[in-house]
Amino acid sequence: MNAIGVDVGGTKIAAGVVTPQGEILKEARYPTPTSSGRLVASIARAVAEVRDGFEVGGVCLAVPGLILAQENKVVFSPNLHAVEGVPLKKELEPRIGLPLTIENDGNAAAWGEFRFGAGREVDHLVFVTLGTGIGGGVITHGILMRGAQGSGGELGHVTVHATGPRCACGNHGCLEALASGTAIGRRGREVASERPASALGRLAVERKVLGEDVTELAQKGDEAALSVLEETGTWLGIGLAGFVNVFNPEVVAIGGGVAKAGELILEAARREVHLRARPPSRDLAEIKVASLGPESGVLGAAALARDPSSGEYLLGS
Amino acid sequence: MNAIGVDVGGTKIAAGVVTPQGEILKEARYPTPTSSGRLVASIARAVAEVRDGFEVGGVCLAVPGLILAQENKVVFSPNLHAVEGVPLKKELEPRIGLPLTIENDGNAAAWGEFRFGAGREVDHLVFVTLGTGIGGGVITHGILMRGAQGSGGELGHVTVHATGPRCACGNHGCLEALASGTAIGRRGREVASERPASALGRLAVERKVLGEDVTELAQKGDEAALSVLEETGTWLGIGLAGFVNVFNPEVVAIGGGVAKAGELILEAARREVHLRARPPSRDLAEIKVASLGPESGVLGAAALARDPSSGEYLLGS
Repeated sequence: MNAIGVDVGGTKIAAGVVTPQGEILKEARYPTPTSSGRLVASIARAVAEVRDGFEVGGVCLAVPGLILAQENKVVFSPNLHAVEGVPLKKELEPRIGLPLTIENDGNAAAWGEFRFGAGREVDHLVFVTLGTGIGGGVITHGILMRGAQGSGGELGHVTVHATGPRCACGNHGCLEALASGTAIGRRGREVASERPASALGRLAVERKVLGEDVTELAQKGDEAALSVLEETGTWLGIGLAGFVNVFNPEVVAIGGGVAKAGELILEAARREVHLRARPPSRDLAEIKVASLGPESGVLGAAALARDPSSGEYLLGS
Repeated sequence: MNAIGVDVGGTKIAAGVVTPQGEILKEARYPTPTSSGRLVASIARAVAEVRDGFEVGGVCLAVPGLILAQENKVVFSPNLHAVEGVPLKKELEPRIGLPLTIENDGNAAAWGEFRFGAGREVDHLVFVTLGTGIGGGVITHGILMRGAQGSGGELGHVTVHATGPRCACGNHGCLEALASGTAIGRRGREVASERPASALGRLAVERKVLGEDVTELAQKGDEAALSVLEETGTWLGIGLAGFVNVFNPEVVAIGGGVAKAGELILEAARREVHLRARPPSRDLAEIKVASLGPESGVLGAAALARDPSSGEYLLGS
């Protein structure tokens, strides 16, 4: 049966009707409203739009933030306050007329990559999204590791350097504070002021340097920008090495906007994993760019919608 | 059916016949030989001794080090070289005449606590052993998280402070390098020289201060020793906070010799978890001392022996 996956992002809502084989039959996109009431209405409208003409069994929303699975509710969403505390299932199910569940966006995207993307041939996948923040999800023994409340898989908020920079979550030295797009922007501005003659330094005179600028200049060969990405890759690798030791995965897939930097980050990350992770896990784990791009959330949510009642989503569900 | 669990430690081998309910019917202990041939013979002897007179369905060995589950082999065991590379299943099964599997000792002990101890009422358990090193195991959704090769659950080798002290594994700033018994001893000696008038400082004049000395003096109220344990607890908490965010467990159980320090370490650890982990995971996780003590390995291995063929050990197996 087809299912609808809805990726509720900080700037846009994407809904898609997806076949069990992972084909998106129809998709709709709306900007994300900032009020809770309009957010619920926009989700309902997106679902209605894509559903038209298709037989659909259920809906799953991929939402940013920490969820309480039992209550189908988001309890903490620093980048999308409109979704916090809203009883999404209760408000949306009657309007949609289909069974609805919610899932953390990182977990849903991980499930998408597991079912249809970079992890489709393995049972153990670590998926890390590098964007403004860092999120992710883990599939272990073919099961989505949601944890007791559905809040598991917060891979960005492990401390890799206890005295490191302050993180958006309030702590110091989280992986997110050192290897996210935000961290790249911050380091880019620091390095720009240290190396004013570099392309990065010259850009900084004109305007505020952002993470994407660093990647763009690095791709054009600017040494200063390249050094920022290499440093970022090293921090990423320090985090990934821990995940490799803990999860012993076959594949570590890197998604999110920052993954566009590709080998400019991953080469340093792999080097660090090789230094810090232990055999045999170290030698098994393949570290690569995720394959579904921005569709992983819609695809993963749709796949999860097929088994809404279970806390555990087994392969083939 | 009863099963035999064998805990192969760095100094002794403990074998026990265990009922499905977790009762140890008979137990035997031998010193651990340093040669591979004598190690295999001692394990076989311990199994034969406890088996006598009981009906037994299978045997599981809990071994220190990183294992390759498919090959029933230990590939890396820094504290028990005699076990490295030995085809334990092939050598022992014919001598014992029972199906035999091997499991990492941290994973086996975690399974013991999950089935019979601190995690027996939950589906999500993080178990951390604090001894000379740091090991552990994770149960998620009722499944032992062994990873693709059976090498998962290496909780001591996640980096919590990238520029921290060198770890036995060769890296810097692993949790093990900051919160193990070895780390307590090292910090104890440093603090002793900084505070020569303390009980810790006076002991250091007589002989080399070890981790257990620090715990003993802290229990007697020595401020210097107490400060070492508090610092250790803080590092432990930094690591546990990451585990709480990643696994969203109901219980975090602390075992191993260092767990004897109890609240002198756990109070600081809980404080740090509260600072660094995020709701709702932070508020759910109960951090406490494990309940089986040194028997967790034998009990867990025996419980795992009941399902030797499966890579996933489901609750009730």
